[in-house]
Amino acid sequence: MVEVGIIMGSISNKETGKKCSETLEKLGIKYKITVASAHRTPEKVKSIVKEYEKKGVKVFIGIAGLSAALPGVIASLTTKPVIGVPTDAALGGLDALLSISQMPSGVPVATVGVNNGKNAALLAAEIIAVSDREIEEKIKKYRNELRRSTESSVKTLEKT
Amino acid sequence: MVEVGIIMGSISNKETGKKCSETLEKLGIKYKITVASAHRTPEKVKSIVKEYEKKGVKVFIGIAGLSAALPGVIASLTTKPVIGVPTDAALGGLDALLSISQMPSGVPVATVGVNNGKNAALLAAEIIAVSDREIEEKIKKYRNELRRSTESSVKTLEKT
Amino acid sequence: MVEVGIIMGSISNKETGKKCSETLEKLGIKYKITVASAHRTPEKVKSIVKEYEKKGVKVFIGIAGLSAALPGVIASLTTKPVIGVPTDAALGGLDALLSISQMPSGVPVATVGVNNGKNAALLAAEIIAVSDREIEEKIKKYRNELRRSTESSVKTLEKT
Amino acid sequence: MVEVGIIMGSISNKETGKKCSETLEKLGIKYKITVASAHRTPEKVKSIVKEYEKKGVKVFIGIAGLSAALPGVIASLTTKPVIGVPTDAALGGLDALLSISQMPSGVPVATVGVNNGKNAALLAAEIIAVSDREIEEKIKKYRNELRRSTESSVKTLEKT
Amino acid sequence: MVEVGIIMGSISNKETGKKCSETLEKLGIKYKITVASAHRTPEKVKSIVKEYEKKGVKVFIGIAGLSAALPGVIASLTTKPVIGVPTDAALGGLDALLSISQMPSGVPVATVGVNNGKNAALLAAEIIAVSDREIEEKIKKYRNELRRSTESSVKTLEKT
Amino acid sequence: MVEVGIIMGSISNKETGKKCSETLEKLGIKYKITVASAHRTPEKVKSIVKEYEKKGVKVFIGIAGLSAALPGVIASLTTKPVIGVPTDAALGGLDALLSISQMPSGVPVATVGVNNGKNAALLAAEIIAVSDREIEEKIKKYRNELRRSTESSVKTLEKT
Amino acid sequence: MVEVGIIMGSISNKETGKKCSETLEKLGIKYKITVASAHRTPEKVKSIVKEYEKKGVKVFIGIAGLSAALPGVIASLTTKPVIGVPTDAALGGLDALLSISQMPSGVPVATVGVNNGKNAALLAAEIIAVSDREIEEKIKKYRNELRRSTESSVKTLEKT
Amino acid sequence: MVEVGIIMGSISNKETGKKCSETLEKLGIKYKITVASAHRTPEKVKSIVKEYEKKGVKVFIGIAGLSAALPGVIASLTTKPVIGVPTDAALGGLDALLSISQMPSGVPVATVGVNNGKNAALLAAEIIAVSDREIEEKIKKYRNELRRSTESSVKTLEKT
Repeated sequence: MVEVGIIMGSISNKETGKKCSETLEKLGIKYKITVASAHRTPEKVKSIVKEYEKKGVKVFIGIAGLSAALPGVIASLTTKPVIGVPTDAALGGLDALLSISQMPSGVPVATVGVNNGKNAALLAAEIIAVSDREIEEKIKKYRNELRRSTESSVKTLEKT
Repeated sequence: MVEVGIIMGSISNKETGKKCSETLEKLGIKYKITVASAHRTPEKVKSIVKEYEKKGVKVFIGIAGLSAALPGVIASLTTKPVIGVPTDAALGGLDALLSISQMPSGVPVATVGVNNGKNAALLAAEIIAVSDREIEEKIKKYRNELRRSTESSVKTLEKT
Repeated sequence: MVEVGIIMGSISNKETGKKCSETLEKLGIKYKITVASAHRTPEKVKSIVKEYEKKGVKVFIGIAGLSAALPGVIASLTTKPVIGVPTDAALGGLDALLSISQMPSGVPVATVGVNNGKNAALLAAEIIAVSDREIEEKIKKYRNELRRSTESSVKTLEKT
Repeated sequence: MVEVGIIMGSISNKETGKKCSETLEKLGIKYKITVASAHRTPEKVKSIVKEYEKKGVKVFIGIAGLSAALPGVIASLTTKPVIGVPTDAALGGLDALLSISQMPSGVPVATVGVNNGKNAALLAAEIIAVSDREIEEKIKKYRNELRRSTESSVKTLEKT
Repeated sequence: MVEVGIIMGSISNKETGKKCSETLEKLGIKYKITVASAHRTPEKVKSIVKEYEKKGVKVFIGIAGLSAALPGVIASLTTKPVIGVPTDAALGGLDALLSISQMPSGVPVATVGVNNGKNAALLAAEIIAVSDREIEEKIKKYRNELRRSTESSVKTLEKT
Repeated sequence: MVEVGIIMGSISNKETGKKCSETLEKLGIKYKITVASAHRTPEKVKSIVKEYEKKGVKVFIGIAGLSAALPGVIASLTTKPVIGVPTDAALGGLDALLSISQMPSGVPVATVGVNNGKNAALLAAEIIAVSDREIEEKIKKYRNELRRSTESSVKTLEKT
Repeated sequence: MVEVGIIMGSISNKETGKKCSETLEKLGIKYKITVASAHRTPEKVKSIVKEYEKKGVKVFIGIAGLSAALPGVIASLTTKPVIGVPTDAALGGLDALLSISQMPSGVPVATVGVNNGKNAALLAAEIIAVSDREIEEKIKKYRNELRRSTESSVKTLEKT
Repeated sequence: MVEVGIIMGSISNKETGKKCSETLEKLGIKYKITVASAHRTPEKVKSIVKEYEKKGVKVFIGIAGLSAALPGVIASLTTKPVIGVPTDAALGGLDALLSISQMPSGVPVATVGVNNGKNAALLAAEIIAVSDREIEEKIKKYRNELRRSTESSVKTLEKT
């Protein structure tokens, strides 16, 4: 079974996609990642969403820059939670951030920060963890590591 | 035969749609206008685009605010020229302007100014006029009227 | 049991909070709504988050304008999914939108559009629906109503 | 006969102009490309527009950064469709994007994304295709290639 | 003889034009004010600039909103100083402010603040005063009045 | 005794923190600098604020990018003056600048410019100098040096 | 003795000035408030700063919109802490916010949010409280009231 | 006699100052260039303005980034025309552009584009040319060269 379905609007979003998939792997969450464009391959987006739903996907992640219609288009095709990650292809990512977050009432997209593939993965994990005690424990562990890592970064400071 | 197909993403875009249809009427261009949302009724958008294409539509106009995915989604479904009109539902329309204009390479949308339904109609007319001498004459007449109207507006100034 | 915990940073966010709670009621989701400020009553935010977690809250919604630290602060206190709603207290809500969405890696907030309390509620419902078939059915029904409502809005157009 | 007339406001827009001309060549559309500035050589712009119209140009493309008055000035001199391409000479291209898109009612410019010479060419092609079945076929073929290229980009992903 | 030539891009800029003309009158500077659009009546703009130059105009003022090409187009037609006043027809006037100020090297426009017709008039007066001692005295008197008016505004404060 | 407590939201703000600490050293002001995140280590922020207050800290400096909640969170925990320094992790620092400055009424943060660690240090010094004649003298000396350095920079100009 | 000196750049900033003075009164802090413009009455600004310094002013507050040079100009004349309050005369106050916060290194201004006269007063109080135990107590009391007021606002919610 | 007085707010504006002085040299206009900061050396700014006025300066040019108060401060000290050049020290120069252009009514600054020292010089020349036939001829010659240079840039295009 696959729990998270990641779709990138273009292969140019690869780096952000990678941050996303690496974080899911770290949390032991099964995912699939692919490329499909809301504008170039709309039928592909549709078939992937349907295919992923059949595979048991609980959360979708759409990664896109510029007009960044992909996360919203995924959201129009499913009632599963959809996370949108704007990338900074132009204007520092402001165009994509506004496109993804300013969805019309009725069809929400859960927007995370510009290029923040890691947070998309963590949000997906938190959503899955609502009904999965094991994942919840892993997120708590991750947070603790994060806490420790931030705390220990003070040492870097002291060395300089 | 219908020459221009106007789709509004929401009935709240009615005023902008009206400026668009009134201008087309003035130029004697046959059009159809409807409401369909890229996010709320994606299948409807698809069926309308197909239906309009069958009716002979040469140019599409998509009117939308906020995430404003509609014009781009129409463009993904047809190779006819698609004109996008951003509306100012939020942030003065900057969100919709960026969403509509910043399309990825390969699938263009012809963006006009915020709320500018009139310019969308005129651009559609100009596109049709490329192969329609009669419409071309009407546009030239319209431009002359516009010129005269601007010139005569000086009188308003003189009266005050 | 309470499923969604809504915290508004100020009573001035009441209208957005209401759109949120009305939508949850419509979907039959149990919620609690209160006011607590990340800056004025940080201890209260902490105690509410702990109290809500004990009551079984699966998703948090933080509503805030301006600096809008509330959703991020909630996210720092829990590993449950946190939805952030920016309100337009100033600058059209751009300040709050950026504050809420641009979270550092490790602590995500699921941002929805400016003032969009309805989408926050629907996103919360979608998250709960990942493990609740009944809510999933209600969301699908809601989407169908939305679709019909959008489709029937064409009639409004025809009347004018 | 020439079908598309491209005018760049400055030789510094050369890269964007090239993306434009290469795409037109790929689609077998005859074009001419030159440099003329709305501010530095306004008479030249006027004579080029008249010359291009005589040569049968159906669509104009104006490429400009900063104040980017060129596309609007072309539009004031012809009733042929005018496509405007903002370039990112400053402020990420936001200045040029606003200048080109926010035309006053009566004189439209069809704006495409920042630096997006390719989309300008494709939009020009779509406009010509309204009355040219052959070009329409070429655009459909181009779209199919685009679709296949996007689909095959998944392989790049798999290799990494 | 006329010293300042004011051109508004549209009669909708009337209020800003009025602030401009009233200030010039106060300073005893002869001016002419008219309406002509860079996009709707480009030939008119050209003929007015030539006519005004013959009448002895030393400074031009162009008032425009949206794309606001007018001041730049005037500047392309004359080597007299051109002052540009952006108006807030949309986006708070940011579109017009960027269009007017971001001129390409070689053809400057002296931009003043959004809707600030008064400052355009004062700047024109300062430019004329470079070779007109009488106007210089009037500007100094105006500044003194301004100083006194600002100083006496404290009394308004004390009354409340 | 420690007079200024500097907290950076992340070790990535090190450069800005350094400009801050170096300036304090130059003015002979005792400080402590550490890393603690409002989102990753909220409890740590709280304990540091309490610890610093016990050590006699008179002014806090919070340095953060993106959502930049840190300065506001410090301000919610103390009634000592809190200075916030936005860093340019994204969008040129506009996100952090808005987050830090747009605090709700009741809990102020003293915001300085993007990446401007030096100004944060000087502002802290000015605050301490309100009741410390010695520091006041040092600031005046610093200002004089600054004045001389600016004045002597003309020589650099002359050499080129 | 006067502890806080408030200078407004224009009488149009009266409302923001009032929020400032009322808050200072509530905290029992002696202040003086006046109008002086960095651009219209620069000498007056200078004489007021000197006069206020003689009267024992510990903190300055400058309130200004648009170019908003006033707080920075005050800061150039004194080494006392200067708080800047941007007002929303245009562009939602973004122009003034950037002008006031983006000071060059060496001369800091403590910027608070747009129109936020209350926070300017509280920040001034916090600065004074660094060496005034009595004011510190009053601020703590104020914060407690704020806390209680925020907590009791929940009742407003319950009534609706 | 000196005709143009250039003041840079910081030696970091050297490149923009150079474009300015080189253009003035080309036009045979006598100028002086120096560094003085509105915030770091306000008295120096004042003495330079007075000194330059005595030397016969007809136009001032102020070059500054960030808060960019310099041009406005110069304008407050003289009734000669003041040209302001924003530089892109941060945020692409948007902060400085707004600071310089959004002057309060009564004290205008003639703003040119970001980093556009050349246009500042040309605008100064145009202002001087109002009463100097010789300079007017030189500007016309410059414009002709500019025209020819733009026209000949087409050849560059043809070669590639």
